Amino acid sequence: MKKISVSVLTTALGCALAAQPVQYVNPFIGSDGMGHTFPGACVPFGGIQLSPDTDTIPHNVEGRYQNRVYDYCAGYRHSDGTIVGFSHRHLSGTGHSDLGDILLMPTTGEVKLVPGTKDCPESGYRSRFNHESETASPGSYEVTLDDYGIRAELTATQRVGVHRYTYPAGEAQNIILDLGHGIYGYDGKVRWSTLRVENDTLLTGFRLTNGWSRTNYTYFAISFSKPIRDYGCKDRKKSLYSGFWRRFDIEHNFPDMAGRDLAAWFTFDAGEPVTVKVAISAVDASGAVRNLEAEAAGSFEEIASSAEAAWNSRLGRFTVEGTEAEKTMFYTSLYHTLINPSVYMDVDGRYRGVDGNIHEAKGFTNYTVFSLWDTYRAEHPFLGVFFPSENADMIRSMVAHYQQSAVGMLPVWSLMGNEGWCMSGYHAVPVIADAIVNGTYSDNGEALEAMVATSRVGFYEGVAEYMAKGYVPYDVSDTGASTTLEYSYDDWAIYAAAVKAGREDLAAEYKKRAQNYRNLYDPSIGYARPRYSDGSFKKDFDIDQTYGEGFIEGNSRNFSFHVPQDVAGLIPLMGGEKAFLKKLEDLFAMDLDPKYYADNEDIEKECLVGGYVHGNEPSHHVPYLFAWTSKPWLTQYWVREIINRMYREGIDGLGGNDDCGQMSAWYLFSAMGFYPVCPGSGQYVIGAPYLPYIKIELASGKTLEIKADGVSDKNRYVKSLKINGRLLNRLYVNYDEIMDGGIWEFEMSSRPSKTKNMNKPYSLTIQK
Amino acid sequence: MKKISVSVLTTALGCALAAQPVQYVNPFIGSDGMGHTFPGACVPFGGIQLSPDTDTIPHNVEGRYQNRVYDYCAGYRHSDGTIVGFSHRHLSGTGHSDLGDILLMPTTGEVKLVPGTKDCPESGYRSRFNHESETASPGSYEVTLDDYGIRAELTATQRVGVHRYTYPAGEAQNIILDLGHGIYGYDGKVRWSTLRVENDTLLTGFRLTNGWSRTNYTYFAISFSKPIRDYGCKDRKKSLYSGFWRRFDIEHNFPDMAGRDLAAWFTFDAGEPVTVKVAISAVDASGAVRNLEAEAAGSFEEIASSAEAAWNSRLGRFTVEGTEAEKTMFYTSLYHTLINPSVYMDVDGRYRGVDGNIHEAKGFTNYTVFSLWDTYRAEHPFLGVFFPSENADMIRSMVAHYQQSAVGMLPVWSLMGNEGWCMSGYHAVPVIADAIVNGTYSDNGEALEAMVATSRVGFYEGVAEYMAKGYVPYDVSDTGASTTLEYSYDDWAIYAAAVKAGREDLAAEYKKRAQNYRNLYDPSIGYARPRYSDGSFKKDFDIDQTYGEGFIEGNSRNFSFHVPQDVAGLIPLMGGEKAFLKKLEDLFAMDLDPKYYADNEDIEKECLVGGYVHGNEPSHHVPYLFAWTSKPWLTQYWVREIINRMYREGIDGLGGNDDCGQMSAWYLFSAMGFYPVCPGSGQYVIGAPYLPYIKIELASGKTLEIKADGVSDKNRYVKSLKINGRLLNRLYVNYDEIMDGGIWEFEMSSRPSKTKNMNKPYSLTIQK
Repeated sequence: MKKISVSVLTTALGCALAAQPVQYVNPFIGSDGMGHTFPGACVPFGGIQLSPDTDTIPHNVEGRYQNRVYDYCAGYRHSDGTIVGFSHRHLSGTGHSDLGDILLMPTTGEVKLVPGTKDCPESGYRSRFNHESETASPGSYEVTLDDYGIRAELTATQRVGVHRYTYPAGEAQNIILDLGHGIYGYDGKVRWSTLRVENDTLLTGFRLTNGWSRTNYTYFAISFSKPIRDYGCKDRKKSLYSGFWRRFDIEHNFPDMAGRDLAAWFTFDAGEPVTVKVAISAVDASGAVRNLEAEAAGSFEEIASSAEAAWNSRLGRFTVEGTEAEKTMFYTSLYHTLINPSVYMDVDGRYRGVDGNIHEAKGFTNYTVFSLWDTYRAEHPFLGVFFPSENADMIRSMVAHYQQSAVGMLPVWSLMGNEGWCMSGYHAVPVIADAIVNGTYSDNGEALEAMVATSRVGFYEGVAEYMAKGYVPYDVSDTGASTTLEYSYDDWAIYAAAVKAGREDLAAEYKKRAQNYRNLYDPSIGYARPRYSDGSFKKDFDIDQTYGEGFIEGNSRNFSFHVPQDVAGLIPLMGGEKAFLKKLEDLFAMDLDPKYYADNEDIEKECLVGGYVHGNEPSHHVPYLFAWTSKPWLTQYWVREIINRMYREGIDGLGGNDDCGQMSAWYLFSAMGFYPVCPGSGQYVIGAPYLPYIKIELASGKTLEIKADGVSDKNRYVKSLKINGRLLNRLYVNYDEIMDGGIWEFEMSSRPSKTKNMNKPYSLTIQK
Repeated sequence: MKKISVSVLTTALGCALAAQPVQYVNPFIGSDGMGHTFPGACVPFGGIQLSPDTDTIPHNVEGRYQNRVYDYCAGYRHSDGTIVGFSHRHLSGTGHSDLGDILLMPTTGEVKLVPGTKDCPESGYRSRFNHESETASPGSYEVTLDDYGIRAELTATQRVGVHRYTYPAGEAQNIILDLGHGIYGYDGKVRWSTLRVENDTLLTGFRLTNGWSRTNYTYFAISFSKPIRDYGCKDRKKSLYSGFWRRFDIEHNFPDMAGRDLAAWFTFDAGEPVTVKVAISAVDASGAVRNLEAEAAGSFEEIASSAEAAWNSRLGRFTVEGTEAEKTMFYTSLYHTLINPSVYMDVDGRYRGVDGNIHEAKGFTNYTVFSLWDTYRAEHPFLGVFFPSENADMIRSMVAHYQQSAVGMLPVWSLMGNEGWCMSGYHAVPVIADAIVNGTYSDNGEALEAMVATSRVGFYEGVAEYMAKGYVPYDVSDTGASTTLEYSYDDWAIYAAAVKAGREDLAAEYKKRAQNYRNLYDPSIGYARPRYSDGSFKKDFDIDQTYGEGFIEGNSRNFSFHVPQDVAGLIPLMGGEKAFLKKLEDLFAMDLDPKYYADNEDIEKECLVGGYVHGNEPSHHVPYLFAWTSKPWLTQYWVREIINRMYREGIDGLGGNDDCGQMSAWYLFSAMGFYPVCPGSGQYVIGAPYLPYIKIELASGKTLEIKADGVSDKNRYVKSLKINGRLLNRLYVNYDEIMDGGIWEFEMSSRPSKTKNMNKPYSLTIQK
């Protein structure tokens, strides 16, 4: 892969300019292997992610996943040799797939209306491509489609994807619009689609999909920079009623198309390139037209330049020193944290709620794509600290979701105005609690009400039993053990928010619920273990087995440490300080028998550090738990190990799904030297900076400088930390200390600092 | 069938009251045989037609019609022994089928989620019923569901269907909601559906269907009069994604349902009846809730009483004398003319346009269901005379349709915010011209523009060739001959509107196009005959064959008379006065060889009067063409024959599809003694009254009395007509003469009146 971004070229021409942060972003990182990121064009938190799709693997007929579907969550695999086309919405780093909406593909020659296969691209409209011709930079993507000699350039605004197709001179120009294309594109995902030719440069249309986003409305408006010469379509699953056919040739120049699996083609005269602007709305086609008019008036260059400027302004709030590779990893991680959640609202403030109705977002921007099981850990805490106004609007979006929800719950996995119910817990709660406690979201009572109501929905995975017994029985849910640990932490978050709100009644209730984790630990092994309704523990239990043992995306060896709210309370349950520390040390140092991950699509050897699985999230805070033990420096050791092994500059550089920025946010916090082990506590546990210098322009206008002179793999240990000249005698910093900015000086060392009497971070049961 | 309506019972109790017109309406007329009417509850032009469906015949897999589908256009066949349930939208008398939206069925005992079969109703939720228990009256319908002992009563408002289900005492009460049910319900018609339980008495939801109405959005809100005890659902075509299943039992008490083929059940405690109110909106669920709140606040009785009052106020504008059977036929016909078109707009004025977008109807009520190939002939002319404000709003709806149409045309067959392209011509044009010429629709130029633009859409069935050659070649359209005749008349209507608007340029252009009919008549046979592009006539031509000879729903023997705008110009082409008259006389008197209709679902022997086909519309004006000949009294003879044979009191009493009121409007005009042979001419050709006395309260407030003392099958001939005492020396009356009201005295006789020198009605080529 040759990484030449537009901005690099710009800088080459104007060499007096300082390097811009977008130059350090490599959107291809994570686009192969496990990362599941896409290389295409978007703006920060934009509703459009315009990116090439290299394959469309359907489900097989039994409705089971084909293995390959998992690989195509972002539509693009760097190892593929063909591009199917460019579609407008992609998830960044998820482990479940959907979207790939509104695919365009420029071609020349004979019009083909099927995508064709990888092995035989000539059988359809797809084209071979070569990575030598491919460049990507935040907000822009370019590639040459070798089969047609077409140069395709992409850029985006919040709601509009912009394409420029430069065809070989003299060749008649085709554009294919495949409304049947989709990621997770099983047969029947597209329930219906319509397409209108409004005039010779404007199309509007709609499709309704039933993918992971259960009822997903995608309206669109497409403008071309030059007139359509000729057009047509084919409904590859022809609808029944024949009235249209009797009066028209509905497959040729008929402006009112519809179908279950519609592919349309448009031809243009040879000559200048075609610029195509595609606006999307979940509300209606009028909304899409308004989005188009409001955001995409300029030329391709102007829009691309605006997209780049939007990235530079966000990325540029961070200045780092390090090698080129280190800068690339830092800015690419930062880029990945700012893709999802995504704006889900028209320019006029209208959006489609989870109730399917059209709402107006009054005083906030509505967002979707809340992968909360992942992102409550570091992504939202990161946004809460560094992009607090966007994070607050995301919380407003979550509260609106609750108010519109038939189930009466905050989002679990919010996806395009739908609830996807992926993974477990009710982790919107800690996201909100974190913002309430830190004061970045001001609650009028609505959010706390939503948090409490969500935690009381008895028919949601074992909640009724959890409330009655203090745990989710294994006979009620086969992931009851991990779910109990998650509910217990989420309940602590309600406690924290209730304390902040002065709601003593709720605080007392949820302080109790927050200790439900205690019900799971089996003293005979010192690990969490699923229990049946009758109170007995599951027999024949294997703490290293991920599936079938009561946990989700984590085994007991990892998940047992998931009590971020009360590590001090957990230690005795795992056998006391010595045993706890040994278990923690063993976790990172052990060899995990390959039988435990050989057949698991979520875990590859590359995701492992000993028995610690970084590719799945439940352990993300675990390397920081040494702060509660007598060997806090082991956090400094292992965090650097994890960064070195799991974050590599390369297309397969991510050691697991990026999960909507969670993996990247973990990196960013860790690289800065602190991590939100327990979001909602207002504390960030200190690790060690990965880079020698990081400067951050805070949203408040203040500046935070983090210095770690001489830091290296060798000098990975923190000897001391001075905050604005004051030596810290704690293993954590407080939110306010970050916000106050100033200068943090880490003194690094090649040997662990064994300073005694450092104050340990928060634990529920040792607080007053 | 035992016809006891609610109102009959009311009258029996309060016997001092005069008979109300609803008592004479028998909604079962046409509900078997060819009528395709439904017996259920609606209000005049209401958007709800709540009626029992007795079967749901799917298409077979090849996508061809099964013969039986044709029988179920209105969902109900009187000859069936089981009811599947009660659904909310039905077409009245069409020959194509759709709708059957949102089916409810009350049951007791075990919940079943499939409809079951006619032969084995126990295999599903359907029930046997007996016509002895069944009553219907305008606005109300009742039946006992024998398998469950449930009494079901239905009534309606404009936008809300109201059900009252009385269950056997002590029995737990079920209601099935089958979102997969539909008329024209082939596999896959329902593209998607959602269902939310908002609280224990309110549901909301949505379904998108691809039926004859190509992209049909049906949002709904359902309120129950007592709390739901327990509920659940099954998606009979289970969707793929399993996230919901991992967290919930989504088939039981899960309030956020969705699926491709969703059937839901609700149970209620034994005891009082359940009243269910179902509001429909094409806009959104919020719109449905507002419709519910605005229209359905009252009790079942109050709503039923309002529905009856709405009918009485419309029907009551006509007072007739005659036998009970004659009154039944008159008022039932009047009832049938006032069902379609139907309101298609929420109470707040929002509606879904043919562009799929939401529009607001400013200053008018938006309507749908324009079966214009049928209804331009008599239905709209009838509404234009007697219900002019509704007809004017229908025209406004048509103009809005044009403005939203991607094709740039006025409606051809408007169906639920869609264009169905059924049948041929652009017959919105004469409907509008009729209203413009009569002054019941005031055009600001928009309508004329729409008419002209519609007639110039070159890619619509042969229009480009028609404009170039003066006829639609048979090689371009296999119904090119009838289409040429239809375009030619429609063009005349544009001419008439252009004259009225003072647009001489357009008048000249369309006066010319109005004579294109001339290009079709083959002098060797004196009938219209399809021509190829090269000008040659089709060889091996059979004037009695309906299909494959260049005509649609009519053979050349009938269709050749379809030149209503220029009968005087037509006569020479058919061989001159003597030959023309003979052909006309033969048409009614001949025997048609059964081979010409044996395999034709549109024509049965009962639809025929000689070779004249009353069941299909193209000949409806033909019995009146004697007015242009030397034997005008033959109109009087044959019109009475047609009424006697084609309009019989009985479930199979209609001699053809009622076609959204066209058949009934033909009857009403004919029974009053005049008929709009050429809508747009302002003239109504005189036949003879069928009844001795009809009094009409005109919309202007004036009264028109039509007297025909002594009229009978014997005294079927008109000796003279005096209008307000003035003897008429014409064979037609003018629009203004109807509107002026007063008294029309027909003197009837048993012998034809051979008065000479009666002025003949309008013909284009003999006008100055």
